[in-house]
Amino acid sequence: MTNAADSDLARLRALVRTFVDERDWDQFHTPKNLACALSVEAAELLEHFQWLQHGRIEELGADKLVQVRHEMADVLVYLVRLADKLEVDLFAAVQEKMVLNREKYPAEQVRGDARKYHEYKK
Amino acid sequence: MTNAADSDLARLRALVRTFVDERDWDQFHTPKNLACALSVEAAELLEHFQWLQHGRIEELGADKLVQVRHEMADVLVYLVRLADKLEVDLFAAVQEKMVLNREKYPAEQVRGDARKYHEYKK
Amino acid sequence: MTNAADSDLARLRALVRTFVDERDWDQFHTPKNLACALSVEAAELLEHFQWLQHGRIEELGADKLVQVRHEMADVLVYLVRLADKLEVDLFAAVQEKMVLNREKYPAEQVRGDARKYHEYKK
Amino acid sequence: MTNAADSDLARLRALVRTFVDERDWDQFHTPKNLACALSVEAAELLEHFQWLQHGRIEELGADKLVQVRHEMADVLVYLVRLADKLEVDLFAAVQEKMVLNREKYPAEQVRGDARKYHEYKK
Repeated sequence: MTNAADSDLARLRALVRTFVDERDWDQFHTPKNLACALSVEAAELLEHFQWLQHGRIEELGADKLVQVRHEMADVLVYLVRLADKLEVDLFAAVQEKMVLNREKYPAEQVRGDARKYHEYKK
Repeated sequence: MTNAADSDLARLRALVRTFVDERDWDQFHTPKNLACALSVEAAELLEHFQWLQHGRIEELGADKLVQVRHEMADVLVYLVRLADKLEVDLFAAVQEKMVLNREKYPAEQVRGDARKYHEYKK
Repeated sequence: MTNAADSDLARLRALVRTFVDERDWDQFHTPKNLACALSVEAAELLEHFQWLQHGRIEELGADKLVQVRHEMADVLVYLVRLADKLEVDLFAAVQEKMVLNREKYPAEQVRGDARKYHEYKK
Repeated sequence: MTNAADSDLARLRALVRTFVDERDWDQFHTPKNLACALSVEAAELLEHFQWLQHGRIEELGADKLVQVRHEMADVLVYLVRLADKLEVDLFAAVQEKMVLNREKYPAEQVRGDARKYHEYKK
């Protein structure tokens, strides 16, 4: 039922597709180029946090929060576009990945343990 | 209506929230740490494309495509989690950003023009 | 005198060039691919820090520090390689950039001021 | 003899150290923050290449090449600074890593083989 025509992610996919088609930019959207662009946008998001001491929301002012919000939108736009090109159903992909994560990080073994969390992240 | 309890993105947010709470990992999830993790996952996705000559889907085998799909899921998980912590409605954020993008890149000016596309990206 | 045949950076350039030539990997080393690889290695470095509370050296164990050291080496290898392909003298480039940075961030205006530091980073 | 006071990398370390001390910015330079900044700069470098079809030097104009050169300088500045804070000798680290790389990618096995190169990169 996910990615039904009226789901959030399907609507965003359509929105981005229209934007790209109007500009004839599909020719630039190889999966590799989109993966580059996604990485670049993720770094632009990170840039807003890089010098914060604690990295909490209170350390961002209201203006910064608007910019952060826009960078997050850019990340999602490129992710949705890449999913469109690779015919990946993002909702199903997360569900599938979370099953693997549950096996990899059993709650009773890793609960509240930063050290274990690190090691498991390897 | 977006992020209604039954929307895709709201369901993913709930899925991730449960996973994190079961592990008592919320304590590690400052916005800064999540922005780092998002950037790291975006780079892991890019890694699969870095040496491809054209960067097209045919150059990835079926195995690689499964891995790519999982990296895309990881990116979305951290993005959804960050949105949860910053109280950002991702669907609305993309709609808002796309309005700005339409002003910044008027279709008639940038159509099919890679050079202009570059310059505009600045 | 910089990048004289016996400078550090020139010696690293030669070391990497030999390694690549022995493997006939130059064909994969377009500037774009090297820029991708550099970004991927920088993220692998960041991964070791992403969940640390303060991000200080004491929070990394000795084992992690060895891995961090190796990721830093990978970053430098790709940077030196990219400089080789683009005929950039890295030493001169830093000297040149630091002159610009001194103009952009006058010491008396930005001293010890995190907020200004953020704004200036824009 | 590497990182002798007059080596390239030692001179860059001193240059950056002076710049930071004049601005009292050492307080912001935790290893984690520097690793974030390095990743952000690597992405700014990548941004110049993201939409290029082949990713070759000819596709960058002269102006872009100057910008690329400055982004490369930024990457090196943060890498040298991180090495300073973690007391890593970058020259020795690359030498050490290249020994490991020679074991991991024996020339006779991986020569000119993109597919193997990918797999080995895993």
